[in-house]
Amino acid sequence: MKQYVEAHPWKIIETDFSTGDNMVTESLLSIGNGRMGQRANFEETYSGETLVGSYLAGVYYPDKTRVGWWKNGYPEYFAKVLNSVNWLGLHILLDETVLDLAKLTPLDYCGELDMEKGLLSRSFKIQLTDDILVSVNSERFYSKSHPDSALLRYRLKVEEGDVDFTITSGIEANVLNQDTNYGDSFWENFNSEIRESAGLVTSTTKKTSFNIAASCTHNVRVNGQQVKGEFSNQTPSNFSALYSTYLSNGDEIMIEKYVSICTSFFYPDADLKAKSLDNLDEIINLGYDELSDLQIAWWRKSWDQADISIEGDVKAQQGIRFNIFQLNQTYSGDHELLNIGPKGFTGEKYGGSTYWDTEAYCLPYYMATAGSHIGEYLLKYRYNHLQKAIENAAKLGFNNGAALYPMVTMNGEECHNEWEITFEEIHRNGAIAYAIYDYSNYTGDESYALEYGIEVLIGIARFWKQRVNWSEDKGKYVMLGVTGPNEYENNVNNNWYTSYLACWCLEYTLEVIEKLKAKNPAHYTSIVSKLTFSEKETVDWQHIIDNMYYAYDESRQIFLQQDGYLDKEQILVKDLDPSNLPLNQKWSWDRILRSCYIKQADVLQGIYFFEARFDTETIRRNFEFYEPRTVHESSLSPCVHSILAARIGEFDKAYEMYLRTARLDLDNYNNDTEDGLHITSMAGTWLSIVKGFGGMQLKGDKLSFYPMLPKEWDSYSFRINFRSNTIEVKVGKDEIIFSNLNGDDLNVEVYGETIQLKSLQSTKFVKRSVMA
Amino acid sequence: MKQYVEAHPWKIIETDFSTGDNMVTESLLSIGNGRMGQRANFEETYSGETLVGSYLAGVYYPDKTRVGWWKNGYPEYFAKVLNSVNWLGLHILLDETVLDLAKLTPLDYCGELDMEKGLLSRSFKIQLTDDILVSVNSERFYSKSHPDSALLRYRLKVEEGDVDFTITSGIEANVLNQDTNYGDSFWENFNSEIRESAGLVTSTTKKTSFNIAASCTHNVRVNGQQVKGEFSNQTPSNFSALYSTYLSNGDEIMIEKYVSICTSFFYPDADLKAKSLDNLDEIINLGYDELSDLQIAWWRKSWDQADISIEGDVKAQQGIRFNIFQLNQTYSGDHELLNIGPKGFTGEKYGGSTYWDTEAYCLPYYMATAGSHIGEYLLKYRYNHLQKAIENAAKLGFNNGAALYPMVTMNGEECHNEWEITFEEIHRNGAIAYAIYDYSNYTGDESYALEYGIEVLIGIARFWKQRVNWSEDKGKYVMLGVTGPNEYENNVNNNWYTSYLACWCLEYTLEVIEKLKAKNPAHYTSIVSKLTFSEKETVDWQHIIDNMYYAYDESRQIFLQQDGYLDKEQILVKDLDPSNLPLNQKWSWDRILRSCYIKQADVLQGIYFFEARFDTETIRRNFEFYEPRTVHESSLSPCVHSILAARIGEFDKAYEMYLRTARLDLDNYNNDTEDGLHITSMAGTWLSIVKGFGGMQLKGDKLSFYPMLPKEWDSYSFRINFRSNTIEVKVGKDEIIFSNLNGDDLNVEVYGETIQLKSLQSTKFVKRSVMA
Repeated sequence: MKQYVEAHPWKIIETDFSTGDNMVTESLLSIGNGRMGQRANFEETYSGETLVGSYLAGVYYPDKTRVGWWKNGYPEYFAKVLNSVNWLGLHILLDETVLDLAKLTPLDYCGELDMEKGLLSRSFKIQLTDDILVSVNSERFYSKSHPDSALLRYRLKVEEGDVDFTITSGIEANVLNQDTNYGDSFWENFNSEIRESAGLVTSTTKKTSFNIAASCTHNVRVNGQQVKGEFSNQTPSNFSALYSTYLSNGDEIMIEKYVSICTSFFYPDADLKAKSLDNLDEIINLGYDELSDLQIAWWRKSWDQADISIEGDVKAQQGIRFNIFQLNQTYSGDHELLNIGPKGFTGEKYGGSTYWDTEAYCLPYYMATAGSHIGEYLLKYRYNHLQKAIENAAKLGFNNGAALYPMVTMNGEECHNEWEITFEEIHRNGAIAYAIYDYSNYTGDESYALEYGIEVLIGIARFWKQRVNWSEDKGKYVMLGVTGPNEYENNVNNNWYTSYLACWCLEYTLEVIEKLKAKNPAHYTSIVSKLTFSEKETVDWQHIIDNMYYAYDESRQIFLQQDGYLDKEQILVKDLDPSNLPLNQKWSWDRILRSCYIKQADVLQGIYFFEARFDTETIRRNFEFYEPRTVHESSLSPCVHSILAARIGEFDKAYEMYLRTARLDLDNYNNDTEDGLHITSMAGTWLSIVKGFGGMQLKGDKLSFYPMLPKEWDSYSFRINFRSNTIEVKVGKDEIIFSNLNGDDLNVEVYGETIQLKSLQSTKFVKRSVMA
Repeated sequence: MKQYVEAHPWKIIETDFSTGDNMVTESLLSIGNGRMGQRANFEETYSGETLVGSYLAGVYYPDKTRVGWWKNGYPEYFAKVLNSVNWLGLHILLDETVLDLAKLTPLDYCGELDMEKGLLSRSFKIQLTDDILVSVNSERFYSKSHPDSALLRYRLKVEEGDVDFTITSGIEANVLNQDTNYGDSFWENFNSEIRESAGLVTSTTKKTSFNIAASCTHNVRVNGQQVKGEFSNQTPSNFSALYSTYLSNGDEIMIEKYVSICTSFFYPDADLKAKSLDNLDEIINLGYDELSDLQIAWWRKSWDQADISIEGDVKAQQGIRFNIFQLNQTYSGDHELLNIGPKGFTGEKYGGSTYWDTEAYCLPYYMATAGSHIGEYLLKYRYNHLQKAIENAAKLGFNNGAALYPMVTMNGEECHNEWEITFEEIHRNGAIAYAIYDYSNYTGDESYALEYGIEVLIGIARFWKQRVNWSEDKGKYVMLGVTGPNEYENNVNNNWYTSYLACWCLEYTLEVIEKLKAKNPAHYTSIVSKLTFSEKETVDWQHIIDNMYYAYDESRQIFLQQDGYLDKEQILVKDLDPSNLPLNQKWSWDRILRSCYIKQADVLQGIYFFEARFDTETIRRNFEFYEPRTVHESSLSPCVHSILAARIGEFDKAYEMYLRTARLDLDNYNNDTEDGLHITSMAGTWLSIVKGFGGMQLKGDKLSFYPMLPKEWDSYSFRINFRSNTIEVKVGKDEIIFSNLNGDDLNVEVYGETIQLKSLQSTKFVKRSVMA
């Protein structure tokens, strides 16, 4: 396996600079602060292969759909995460030579993402001529304390010789998305202005009319002495300042760049310019060092809550921290209209911001490591989109308030346009319902479900009711024409996961309705009226629950992924010549579809969701059948397999799958890190430690643990916010220490025994070597 | 049903001019001569909705593929039929007013396509002011005798008042396809030149580098007196001549336009200009009237061979003649590299030139109504593409010379890019093999099959061998992941039609191999060597033939369209609220897929192909099950249903389906005539009379007939070329008259009895009222 970065517990370090890997390391070293973010593009001009990308949360463009053949029901547009103002670029001339690492070979190159502090730094030297050697050190960050701000400190020192130095630095607002469908620009209405020692540019997205105002200024010093520069605006879309000086041997020039970007997603249009300039004033007055201290403090606090430490396995340690760091860079629960995009701020692929990944993978992570308001924000996000989900379903021919949540969305509208996904990968609807259940259970707070969730649940239940049909042939309800999580099957009948989840949705909706009737009959009455809901509907739902057909193989006693799955040629992945992998790059689509190979957990996703309903032998039988057929060509797959492998005591497999999820991007497993990072599945890495190795489950109101330790590790520990408690779990080779860091005494189960964790005390247990 | 044109046995007449219907009538009145053709656009400037389209046989452009999400195996381009030089346009000023029928309301409008003569004419009057009335009569045609030529005669007469008349007429070579994927122009290298009283423009297609040379000149007369005009070329892509005159009350101006278009598809690049100008000279010297006479003579001869006359039902008569006329306008077997495009020269939709329609529908028509060389051309076309078909299959992961013919092609390469069709609608491969069988049988000439066809058959057999897989579960071979002719099902398993056809291909290939071994062992040896063919392969094929799984419903005793078809909700089309139809415009794709509704004959297509293998009761059971579920939203569907309905004595249904196929475009059944005509399925109309009502089949070497007469008709008659004979069959209410018009005595079967048709004699039979 190729090593892109060095192993380190807290840092991502690139020392072996190679232009060929630049797209990968640009992704890996991406930074962001939840409101905005950026690929780790070079500050300097770079003429090599690069995806220059800076992205703003919530700001999108509905790019006209591109399809080969139109199918009724396709959405008109695909929402693109917008490549936005490029504030980074420093155009540097040394004598007459452009500082461009694609053309000048850097010496002692080091790029370093310090995850502990939230800082990205770079250093290198350039032997410009035999006589001239310069060294460069830069550092930058998106401020967590001042979320509209980005900071850069760039130092260049003449180590040998003298050199004429010129730098141009500003902001360019006219940028293109790499993934535009028709080569269109998504921005318009550019206007740049020069203020006293600062520049400001404003622009607007086409169609969606998001406005942005981006300003910046510099603090430039040579050997500590301030240097003045001249701002100018060449075009309406950009401005820049020019600094020129002659640097002698030993001289150092330092450029601090203060950037302030405000968008109409967060502020009223009328205030944008003032907001940007006021914020710029504020950060200049604080200064780089102070802002850097605040940044470090923010991350220290964040790590204090969310860190997972692993002793004895630095690659595993680096992996989990990288995952946690990127999650917390992408989304920190600032805003109930934001969500967690599949690539965060690290690339453009997949567009949109919200997939079912949020509910199925990210929600448990955020609930356990951050404030409970985040869980509620994520649920409200879908509640706010309910009407759009109903319209989406209506477009496909459903009625009576049936809701189909989109496969990918920005504002609740479906963006995806591939019929086998858009129309058929409907299990996503189940994940939305599951999240309501998960939140209610984990927080113990049913008020959301009873007040808001109920409407979402009824919409989803209505969808399933209409989506199944009665098969006269089987004398059962069937679910035809679906695509399960395993997207290497399309348009199949009776996908077990989808059918099982659908019936669970109906059951859970019935349960919440009963609770609501009991606890708040007045609100129930208002819901009945608002949704023109009829009790008759619940009879239909129950009939479906009682008469659903599930694909099952009697001889193997396994749930069948779908009807006819066993007609496929059953060659295990291990028996396949490795030159065939990854299938999605080596095989034609029809060959993939006809094969037995599974892209990602499908039956096993259902077993993971509803683990408590299945005995260990059932889990084992299904795992042992499906794991050898799974190619894990989705980032969402290995974590689920890791968790279930741990559950059935297959620790080597659990560890293998853990590394695959934890280091998916770091080791570029799927050969696609250059497109950006797999943000949402990073929550799966967290799950694979806490729910997998830690064996954490919720049983009723009690947390339960079955901790195990991979043999490669000395110990690991994690912290969990659970209702009013904070618990730390440290799993060593021989003992497990539970610490109740906050809140009252708490009962938990360990290996099936209930024990009390006294407030502010630690409790030790002997670690068992075999799973219960 | 809306009436777009008047019923007439020989003409398509539009009298009720409406700008809203213009796109439909533009399609209906299209003209062409096999080498080129054109929608019935107005000669005059027209600012209303129109698709101005002129197309040249064989000249195409590989437009960059447009897909939403790339799937491995997709082709890089989609071959577009090229909208080419616009030679038609006459820009006419009457005083200062542009003659534009979208702005000036025509009086006594009449557009008339005379199918008997191959001429399109139009006439109307314009009341320009209270004082000025002009009348217009135009006539045009693509010459069948001089296939690089198009002719137009345009007359304008001042009926009242006086008027300043100016006309600009020339050729514009810079035209755009309406269906371009990215708005690109497909033409380049324009050059226009003015010769003595003629203009010439040349241009080249991008990428494919087809060259064209188009020239024209005019003969303009006022009251018979020649008027001189001035040619000029404003841009490199066009030229025009200007004629101005003052017309007094009663004056008539006549403009004859002689157009000569030569393409590098037919002529060497170096000769193109000279060819175009020489041809222009030739047609000018012949003159309009002489060319018109030659045109009428050509069509008379064509009708003499191909006409089907129907007495007592003018709409049915018009329909079949319209279908025959359009077929013979589109393709006349000129060239072995040409084929029959789905829209001919009448529109751009679907691109490409060749679908399986050619083999399944058009071949029998052309074999029976035209020279046998056409059948051989059509087969050779595919033989010439064999290597490309092997490459196409290799791209999808097949090997050992397996051949998958493309869904749509220009040069043998696949153009289609929709995985469920491109990769899965593989039954098309079977139609290619079937055509070899059909040709060999009908002509009695096995030399093609043994010399060339054998290679195609082995390539196809190898494909099927690799495309099936052994199901351990079923203990049978299965065919997973296919789309049958019914494209309202995608990615289904064990589509009966595909599986049946695949095994038939294997059987037929084995049969031809045995014949070849017996008749020409030397050629067999050379084939073995050329294809590295092994006898072992035939053992595998036989094993598949013997162990294929076919979906079947025991209780109904019907072939099942695919596995799981009976799980669908079975609501018949007649019980569906008509507001749901057509499904492809009213329903979302997923709803269509989940439904039981069938786009076009699927199981029934197989029964039609292999009718002789099934007893009448089997045909009836399957027909009675599938017909009520079929929505006929493909033009290829009603003809097959018409034929089978006739076979089982369901005459009303046969007649209903006949009208639907015959008048599909004339009555705009599928609300898509505006895109162009459904050319290839027009052969199905012919089949539905000859094979349906006429009951013609080939039994061994003998033609067999089971003639019936729809109760709406007094009689019908058709002619068949069969090997060295020409037979006319006339079916009346009481008797049937067979005339052996050419060749030796011939034995045929009528109602199962063998009778001899004496050379050059007619034989009468009593018509039976019930099918055998």
